[in-house]
Formats: sequence, C-alpha cells, structure tokens
Amino acid sequence: MNFGGMLKLSKLVKSRNQLYWKGLFGDDPIKFLLLFFVLYVHYVYLFIYAYLVFLYSESSGKFENRIYADYSIYKGKAALSAGPAPPKFSKLDSGGLKVDRCGTIMLTFTPASGERKYDWEKKQRFALSPTEVGSLISLKALESCEFFHDPAMKSSNAGQVRKSLSVKPHADGSGYFISLSVVNNIQKTNERLTVPVTTAEFAVMRTAFSFALPHIMGWDRYTNQLPKSAGENPSKGVSQLDLEWDR
Amino acid sequence: MNFGGMLKLSKLVKSRNQLYWKGLFGDDPIKFLLLFFVLYVHYVYLFIYAYLVFLYSESSGKFENRIYADYSIYKGKAALSAGPAPPKFSKLDSGGLKVDRCGTIMLTFTPASGERKYDWEKKQRFALSPTEVGSLISLKALESCEFFHDPAMKSSNAGQVRKSLSVKPHADGSGYFISLSVVNNIQKTNERLTVPVTTAEFAVMRTAFSFALPHIMGWDRYTNQLPKSAGENPSKGVSQLDLEWDR
Amino acid sequence: MNFGGMLKLSKLVKSRNQLYWKGLFGDDPIKFLLLFFVLYVHYVYLFIYAYLVFLYSESSGKFENRIYADYSIYKGKAALSAGPAPPKFSKLDSGGLKVDRCGTIMLTFTPASGERKYDWEKKQRFALSPTEVGSLISLKALESCEFFHDPAMKSSNAGQVRKSLSVKPHADGSGYFISLSVVNNIQKTNERLTVPVTTAEFAVMRTAFSFALPHIMGWDRYTNQLPKSAGENPSKGVSQLDLEWDR
Amino acid sequence: MNFGGMLKLSKLVKSRNQLYWKGLFGDDPIKFLLLFFVLYVHYVYLFIYAYLVFLYSESSGKFENRIYADYSIYKGKAALSAGPAPPKFSKLDSGGLKVDRCGTIMLTFTPASGERKYDWEKKQRFALSPTEVGSLISLKALESCEFFHDPAMKSSNAGQVRKSLSVKPHADGSGYFISLSVVNNIQKTNERLTVPVTTAEFAVMRTAFSFALPHIMGWDRYTNQLPKSAGENPSKGVSQLDLEWDR
Repeated sequence: MNFGGMLKLSKLVKSRNQLYWKGLFGDDPIKFLLLFFVLYVHYVYLFIYAYLVFLYSESSGKFENRIYADYSIYKGKAALSAGPAPPKFSKLDSGGLKVDRCGTIMLTFTPASGERKYDWEKKQRFALSPTEVGSLISLKALESCEFFHDPAMKSSNAGQVRKSLSVKPHADGSGYFISLSVVNNIQKTNERLTVPVTTAEFAVMRTAFSFALPHIMGWDRYTNQLPKSAGENPSKGVSQLDLEWDR
Repeated sequence: MNFGGMLKLSKLVKSRNQLYWKGLFGDDPIKFLLLFFVLYVHYVYLFIYAYLVFLYSESSGKFENRIYADYSIYKGKAALSAGPAPPKFSKLDSGGLKVDRCGTIMLTFTPASGERKYDWEKKQRFALSPTEVGSLISLKALESCEFFHDPAMKSSNAGQVRKSLSVKPHADGSGYFISLSVVNNIQKTNERLTVPVTTAEFAVMRTAFSFALPHIMGWDRYTNQLPKSAGENPSKGVSQLDLEWDR
Repeated sequence: MNFGGMLKLSKLVKSRNQLYWKGLFGDDPIKFLLLFFVLYVHYVYLFIYAYLVFLYSESSGKFENRIYADYSIYKGKAALSAGPAPPKFSKLDSGGLKVDRCGTIMLTFTPASGERKYDWEKKQRFALSPTEVGSLISLKALESCEFFHDPAMKSSNAGQVRKSLSVKPHADGSGYFISLSVVNNIQKTNERLTVPVTTAEFAVMRTAFSFALPHIMGWDRYTNQLPKSAGENPSKGVSQLDLEWDR
Repeated sequence: MNFGGMLKLSKLVKSRNQLYWKGLFGDDPIKFLLLFFVLYVHYVYLFIYAYLVFLYSESSGKFENRIYADYSIYKGKAALSAGPAPPKFSKLDSGGLKVDRCGTIMLTFTPASGERKYDWEKKQRFALSPTEVGSLISLKALESCEFFHDPAMKSSNAGQVRKSLSVKPHADGSGYFISLSVVNNIQKTNERLTVPVTTAEFAVMRTAFSFALPHIMGWDRYTNQLPKSAGENPSKGVSQLDLEWDR
C-alpha cells in the first residue's frame, strides 16, 4: 500500500481543516465554545424539564405500589383482618388482558398475647376464593359454612397441613364465630383461632366483600374499556344474538 | 429550445447568489451550515421528545383491547363460563354518545370430554339481555326461570334454531341447575348441557351480574361526565321539576 | 417647548442607532433577519406543538357531552324509559365543589300510536328525586307507592298542572303497574299512561337505580378526591371523634 | 495587608478580561447582549409554557379540594345531614399507602329555629365508624340500635361529654326515629335532637352508606392499582394458596 500517499492526503486534509477553522472563527475560537455551551445548557434544561414532568405525572398517578386498608376486628383472644388481593393478569399477544390467577380476600388471624396486644409472629392466613366469598356474603341468619384448604396441594407435602375456616352463628343470631383451625402434621402443631363477629361487623364484611368480589374476579377491568363505536363494527345493525351462532 | 439563453440565465442567478452568499457569510459559508445543523438537531430532538411523551401516555392508558375474566364453574358433565360484553355506542353529531346496542352477559356452556377435560369445539353460547340478567339476580329461593332465543330471528332461518336457558332450583334449595338446550332443525341436532350451580356459586354470579348490569346498560358512562357547574346553566335556581314541562 | 432641541436629540439617537446597526451587522443586515426568522419559526413550532398536545388530551378525555343510555320498556299501550340526570355543582371560592341541585332519574312515558309505534310528540316526563328513588328501590313485594309533582310549583301557575306517578303491584305479585297521570287545568287535558313492568324489568330498574342513586346525590365525587396524607394533617394521631367537638 | 499588590492583580485581571472581550466580539459587544437576550426570552417562554401546562392539568384534574354533597332531611323540629369523610392515608417508605385513620360518615343534626329555618350555630355532630355504618345498613324492620361516643376519650375531659345516637323504628314500621343526645357535664347542657326518617329516606341512606362504606374503609384504592402482570411475578403458576404459608 502507498502509505506515503495516505500521509500526504492526511496532511492536506489537516491543513484544509485548519484553514476552515481559521476562516470560521478567525481570532476567536472561544466564540464557538460559547455557542456550544449555550446549546448544551439548553438541552440539559429540556431533559430536566421532561424529567420533572415525568415525576409529576407519576406522583399524581392513580396507582400505588401497595395498599394497606385491611378491615380489622380486635377481640379478646384474637384479631381478624380482611383485605382484598387483586388478581394477576397476563398480557396476551393480541394486546388483551387475561386473568391468570383470580384474586382473593385474605383473612389474617392473630392470637392475643396480652390485653390489647397481639402476637403478629403467630398470625395465620386463609385466602378466600371468589366462590368462598360468594358463600360468605350469601350466608343467611343462623346458617353456617366451612371451607378446607391445603396450602401444599399438588406438592409432595400435600395433606400434611390442613386449614379449615368455619363460620358459625351465635345461638341468639347476634353474629357469628369465625374460626381458623390449622393442623400441621410436619410441625406437629394444632392451632385454633376464633374471633366472635357481631352482626354489624359481619354487615361491614358482607358489604366490603360484595364490593371487592367483582374486582378480585377482574370484572372491574371490563368497565375501563373504551366505548366501542358501532361505526367501527362491521356487524352494525346485526342482533347481539348472532354472537350465539359463533361456536 | 434555446439552451444558450438558459445557460446565461443560470450563470446570472448563480453569480447573484454568490454575491448574496458572500455578503451574508463573508469567507465562511460553513458557519451557516453549522447553525443550520444545530437547529435541525434541535427540531429532531423535540419531535423525538414529543413522540416519547405520546408513547408513555399511551402505555399507561387505562383501557385494553379485550379483557378475559370469565367466571367459570367446572362440573362433571359440563362447564359454565360467564362474562360481560360491553354495549356498542355510536357517536352523535352533537358530540354525545348513544347506546346503539345493549351489552350482554355471555354464558358459555362446554361439554366435558373426559375427567377435567372439556371439548371447547362444542361450546354453546347464550347472551343474556339486561332484562334477563334482572330476572336472574332477582330469583328467589326455589323460584325458576326460562328464556328463549332464536339466533336467526328476523332472517330467513327464523325458527330453525331454538335455544332455551332454564334455571331450576335444587329440591333442597342448595342451588340451581342451569341448562342450555339447543334444538337445531337445520343440522338436525338436539343438545342439552346442564351445570349444577351451588348457592355460593350463584351468589358470586348474582353479585357479579349486579355489578355488571349498569355497565352493560351503559349507565356507568353517566358517572364519567364532567360536573356541570350551575353557573354555566341559564336555568340556575329553577327547580329540576321544570324539566318535566318539556315535552 | 424647544422643538429644535428635540429634533437634534432625535437625530443624534438615529445616528447613534445607525452606528450601532453598522457595528452589529456590518455589511449584512440580512444576517439579523435570518436569525429573527429562525427564532420566529421556533416559537410558532412550539405553539403548534402545545396546541396539538392540548387537542390530544381533550380527544382522549373521559367525558362526553351527553350520554343516551336510557333503559326502555316497550309495551302495548305505552313505553317507559328511565335514565339518570347528573346533579348540578357550583364551584366555591375555596375551590370546593357543592351540589347546587340534586340529580334525578328521569322517567319518560310515551303513548303507543300503533303496533310497535310510539308517539314521541306526546311523551310525558316525571323526574324522580333521590328520596323517591329510595322509595322505589325499597319497595317490597305487593307494596305500592305514589308521588305527586307540581311542575309549576312556586310560580303563578302553581296548582294548575298536577302530575302523579303510581307504582302498584300486580295481583299475583308478578310485577307492577307504573302509571303517570297528568291533569292540566290550563290546557284542560287529563292524560294517564300505564306501563306494566315485570319482576325482571323491575329488578333491572332496582339495580340500575341503586347504582345511580349515589351518583345523582353527588356522592361519587367523594371517591375521586386525592388521598389525604396524615403527615400533612396537624391533627395526626387525634381520634376522628374530635371532629364531633366542632360545632 | 498588601493593598498595592491586590490592586495590581485586579488591574491585570481586568486588562486580560478586556483582551478576551475584544477577541470575542471585536467592535460589537452588543451582539453578545442580543444573543443573551434572545436566549433569556426563550427560557422565560419555556417556563411560562411549563407553568400553563401544569395549571391546565390541575384545573382539569379529577379531584377537588372538598366536596359538599350531604344528603339532608329537613323535618319540623330538626334537620339531619349525612356525608362521607374520606380516610386519612400515610405514605410508607416502600411507596405503599396505608390507612392511617378510617373514614366516617358524618351525621349533622341541626335544631329548627322557626318554620323552615334551622339554627346552624347549634348543630351537633356524630361520626359513624365503618362498623356503626354496618350496623345501620343491616338494620332489619322493627330493629333498633344505639351507639355511644365520648369525643374527649383518652383526654383529661374523658367522661364529661357523652353523645349517643339511637335509631328506633316507628311503631307501624313506616320508618325510624334517629336521635342524637348530647350530655355535656362541663357546660351543664343536655340536648336531644330527633329527626323522623321515612322508609324511603332510610332506603336512600342505606344505599348511599353501602356505596360509601368501601370508600371510607379505603378499599376503593385497591381497584385503582395497576394490573399485575403474571409475567413479572416470580411465583407464576404457583397457587394463591401458597400465600397462606407465609406467616
């Protein structure tokens, strides 16, 4: 290769550049630096502005990482807390949203360790499925119900731990006893936590659970959908019943 | 054509341009290119920024194309799924929104093809209208109801396919049998799918259907309207009853 | 006044300006025009961008001018439509929002003019107040209720027009007759429109009216308020009961 | 101190600056001022634009400082108003939101001071807790209930003021008497305000209170959470029951 030629070209380019440089800024290269600095400040400003707008929209956003709003009933021997856990959705390739796992209403029982003191280390949980919630909110006066869970279901520990939740009415119809019994054959423990619930407290649970039920089922998502304009729909004017043909 | 004349003109234009050019930038036309380049970068930057803001607002949007959150009951001989279908709206010239077609709650029955297996190819659908939903959620203990649909109603096939949904209480009041019967005179088929539904499952359906009913009627749209300030209203101070005059 | 002196001053200023101008741009005033033009384009661009952002946020907004989603029951002699009318709010100087006039649920009765035809010119309206809605949704089986309105109440025509809405149960408990009677002493007319409503249709009305009731009362506004952080509240840790002291 | 040396240094700096200045702008320092002014205007413009965007997003926001939408019942001897007070939240370090103090439904009793006149100076308040609301909305026909509050509970004035709210059915089952009794041992006063409430008015309260109950408990916050995509969750495919293990 002809390195001598390349060197000459390089020199030529360099000398031309120097000429251009001199032609451009004459005696004052600082003029260029000033312009560069001003524009640089401008872009930094715009980035900071965009970031502040982003932060503001985040902070005034409508969702929080996690909500702690359990309804708690503190009684002599134990406390009972209840709060909804939202369903898990998965995004489909089509852009849709599918309930992957139904939400629950989580009941937490905590034994008392003294007067108005509760031992949160010993708390026990029971996650009510939508159908179990339906059972609770449709409970009539003097009716009772009971649910059984195996937290290790389908694993090698299946059958070793048995949880049961029972709701039994007071004899005088003035409320219910809600009990969680946990029999753990691995740890050889057998715990039973019972919380008496008044009619008023049960009414709060019934109302709050009824409110939460469509949400843990994911049905509240349907109401956030955009209105579908009939004009965009090719089947305009065709009865909804036609959808029943589709099988 | 007189190419000579055109050439002269071209030369003239060029020489005039060169004069302007020289007057504008003296010895350094590159200065102009630099300014042009800086401003060009600036606009490209702003467009990218605007596009990112647009993308962000889209992605954090509250609506999805489609939601899949059916409530499903799997029983030995068939499965029953229920989920709301939103109403279709059409936009009026006045800017208003009109329900063009009421939403429904779609019931899907699927026959079992084995243990815990269902033959989704053979599913049958029944779309409950708002009034049919009202009938279901007001069903009292030991009451029954039945609905008839003709999917080909008002077409030439009218009367050939007859669907009927019946809800009948268990003898002991512990729930309902929900059956879909499809008699198809074209395909000479006669199918009947029955799913036993417990009181708890029916309570879930009742609560979820009650939640969904105002939405399939389009009444949830009323609650998203802007508050109408009385100050903007010429009839301020006039009783609402006056509206009753308007006929 | 010494106009000669002013003239001299004016000349001086002008000649100084010309010197400045020359010092600033030398032989090329076009340079200045170019810079001015570039900046002008820049601002026009920013205004157009801001306007587009504004338009986009408007169009994707969550409110529509007006919603038409009445629940309609078409019967042989008349049709009955029902739909909520939102309350009117007024903005307080404190920035708060006050219900100025409660919303209603508007019932519209239209007489039939033939088979499946209704004479919309002759429609009659009755606006249910929140308490009247409460009366309707708490109606037990075989109970009836009646409301009286004077659309010209508190005007000089008071007592001339008398509207009454009556809800009477079918003898077999299978639904209700809803009648609107309008006695107009000015026009010497006496109209009565009756629509038989099935239990299922009444259940839809009961569910939809129960859904709409908090909205026509304006209570749905409470739920759109920002969460009040306790940290911002000087009375943190003080019981809510303290508010009861305030009188 | 050597002021002479400092003076020399100052002169040197000044002369160097003058040289730089001259090298930068030659005969026209005004050119620099013009550029500076143009950029300054630019930034002021951007700040004003950002502020207007901020103001617009605030004004079109979905929350107001305070809502006044009490449901009021005006009767001969007193008026009763009811409206929800939202819960207080505190922000956790984790970014979550915790109910710090439950909301209430505030009842306000105002004695009549003449025909259709009420003495707002003498109003008395009673804040219903969620459980008390549950008691009210689950009240069956001909049932009664009573609540006791001590506004000075846990302070040195404890026991001095005693408020009690009683809800007693009319003998014919056509509604309830709602009474607030305030015994103040400090001011030696004993007031009792009673408002008769019809079945229809009680139905409005029941429906509105049931609507408000999940909101004063803070459960409506759960429904504004972002959908949790299962893909982002390491425990995908694991049963919800597993959460019950966690203690």
